Amino acid sequence: MLAIDPAAHLARVRETSPLVHNITNHVAMNSMANVLLAIGASPAMVHAREEAAEFTALAAALTVNIGTLSPHWVEAMEASVLAASEVGHPWVLDPVAVGATRYRRETGARLLALAPDVIRGNASEIIALAGQAGGGRGVDSTDPAEAARDAAIRLARQTDGVIAVTGKVDLVTDGRRIARLEGGHPLMPRVTTLGCALTGVVAAFLAGADDRFEATVAALACYAVAGELAGEVARGPGSFAVAFLDALFHLDGEALAERARLEVDDAP
Amino acid sequence: MLAIDPAAHLARVRETSPLVHNITNHVAMNSMANVLLAIGASPAMVHAREEAAEFTALAAALTVNIGTLSPHWVEAMEASVLAASEVGHPWVLDPVAVGATRYRRETGARLLALAPDVIRGNASEIIALAGQAGGGRGVDSTDPAEAARDAAIRLARQTDGVIAVTGKVDLVTDGRRIARLEGGHPLMPRVTTLGCALTGVVAAFLAGADDRFEATVAALACYAVAGELAGEVARGPGSFAVAFLDALFHLDGEALAERARLEVDDAP
Amino acid sequence: MLAIDPAAHLARVRETSPLVHNITNHVAMNSMANVLLAIGASPAMVHAREEAAEFTALAAALTVNIGTLSPHWVEAMEASVLAASEVGHPWVLDPVAVGATRYRRETGARLLALAPDVIRGNASEIIALAGQAGGGRGVDSTDPAEAARDAAIRLARQTDGVIAVTGKVDLVTDGRRIARLEGGHPLMPRVTTLGCALTGVVAAFLAGADDRFEATVAALACYAVAGELAGEVARGPGSFAVAFLDALFHLDGEALAERARLEVDDAP
Repeated sequence: MLAIDPAAHLARVRETSPLVHNITNHVAMNSMANVLLAIGASPAMVHAREEAAEFTALAAALTVNIGTLSPHWVEAMEASVLAASEVGHPWVLDPVAVGATRYRRETGARLLALAPDVIRGNASEIIALAGQAGGGRGVDSTDPAEAARDAAIRLARQTDGVIAVTGKVDLVTDGRRIARLEGGHPLMPRVTTLGCALTGVVAAFLAGADDRFEATVAALACYAVAGELAGEVARGPGSFAVAFLDALFHLDGEALAERARLEVDDAP
Repeated sequence: MLAIDPAAHLARVRETSPLVHNITNHVAMNSMANVLLAIGASPAMVHAREEAAEFTALAAALTVNIGTLSPHWVEAMEASVLAASEVGHPWVLDPVAVGATRYRRETGARLLALAPDVIRGNASEIIALAGQAGGGRGVDSTDPAEAARDAAIRLARQTDGVIAVTGKVDLVTDGRRIARLEGGHPLMPRVTTLGCALTGVVAAFLAGADDRFEATVAALACYAVAGELAGEVARGPGSFAVAFLDALFHLDGEALAERARLEVDDAP
Repeated sequence: MLAIDPAAHLARVRETSPLVHNITNHVAMNSMANVLLAIGASPAMVHAREEAAEFTALAAALTVNIGTLSPHWVEAMEASVLAASEVGHPWVLDPVAVGATRYRRETGARLLALAPDVIRGNASEIIALAGQAGGGRGVDSTDPAEAARDAAIRLARQTDGVIAVTGKVDLVTDGRRIARLEGGHPLMPRVTTLGCALTGVVAAFLAGADDRFEATVAALACYAVAGELAGEVARGPGSFAVAFLDALFHLDGEALAERARLEVDDAP
């Protein structure tokens, strides 16, 4: 028996269809919207300084993704984060390639200082982000999630938030508990922006959740099981992307109960 | 026998392959281009102030979509609308979420004042747009098209244009006639930007048409029938999106004659 | 026996998974990323002036596509080209609709002056680009590649680079040799941005290649064979796009040996 029941969280998302405001990169916008619609949430992409913060207040959750930055967008990101905080709605940071350039490192640090409820990234990104705060440097994106364990725990305690490190194996920690999830499929990294879209799914699961750690773990479990199901019918990355949306749409408690593989422990 | 023959309009689009200039939102660009290519039109996305109006004059029709605004884009939209009007080419407004923020309401009002040939939106958007012009307020996007009937008729008379309210049932009016269309499929709102892409299809059907109302009704009828056909083979929103493009590409007079369900009456 | 072995080039791409930095248009970003992932490369889209050139130095190759321009992007393009040249990495220009507006003609001329390693475009674009440099004018995009032969040879000699004219038949020349490739499928122009994505594939094949002409021919051969394979299972443009990604992913030496149709001659 799982202490965290992904199906209960999924049912809440489908019932409430939370409006998720995304300031996300250009590559991800279309696929992220489709993933959110498939899982039962309601996506909106709004990035103009002239309206972003006002829109955030209407939404149930916010995501901020630094994949394709520009200065006006960074202003909109900060204003929207403040708006979300003011009304007490959760926000999720996706620090795409945060270690790659000075501009990303600076923007990442500015957003980190605003205390995201959840940060979702790959191992390299989480290590780079933690390194900024405490020394050290980003490393290659082929790092397994395990290598980012200590960085994730440190970041979680520093931000008083949840850190989700995704890869072949996923780790989630709030600095107190740590979950390890398996599943998914080797074709997932061959489809662009599935990670970015997962950040949106995490935000949808946070909306109205009592426990940010459990909601994040539930979101990742749903994603991993849908990926596994899609992998069983896909013939390559093109058909995988299609099957993945279909699998998210049809995902149910039975598949989750049978296939979700997650363990929760106390963080060291 | 239908007074409006969608197949004749579709044949004209396929024969002339009109170049449709779209200043549309980032989420929609790729899927809108694919929808236009599938139906037989030729899409182009150009939004820089430095060239948008010059490009508009080369195209057969223009669409303006406020989904992801920014000030430079609004300037390009207005310049392109003026360019289209100067050469006598039709333009279609897609007032995405026009009631959501002050920036959208203001931009919507500025574009409305330029008298779009057609406005295509969901019920909430049409009500919000009509409200701006005459009092009243935007309402929830779950409003059925029927709820927007009076607002649509008022807007059509005010702009001397055509208003298309799309949803489970579609309404089209030019203030004198009103058409009601059924069809489509429940998965359509689960695929992002199919509404935005329909705006492009309407523009393609307007190019070279004698009657804007009939061309708009024909475009919506084709879309609804393609959606119905796609729904028969789709297993979820991912495979629906794929099947929908295939269905648009293969759509023919036989399927339209069998499946298009539309009634035209005098507007009250 | 082929003088150019596409399979050997494909194997190098898959083994090294080159990071390709793309400053590309909004319509193409998602599909280009998926094509690059399917072929085995690693795509990144970065366009801010604040970081583009710094990022270019980290990548193995660069593409610059003028499909959706704006002034800040043009600055980033020029800075990135200089960065690539400084570290000796190849870059590919995609002159989308270069003849359509004054802004495109001017931007095309500025980028042409920076001597792209490869220019990939359709016949109209290559003719327009050559015309700018030596007189003459752009023509309709339905021109067959053959019509652009002389323009391509002249451009290749002028830039000391490779010109790839793609269409139903593809031509590639470095001013000394000229290759002619057949293959692909009639549905390819019905799927948006497959040409833009090919530009990325050319860049991936250039990374670490000894001979730019041969690498470009190999990239086009792989694309044409994958298109042919996808066409055999597609039911329309939607399913073609899906099958094409699957075919790129599974493309192997056997299919290339059986199906690639290319001839290389001395340029006249």
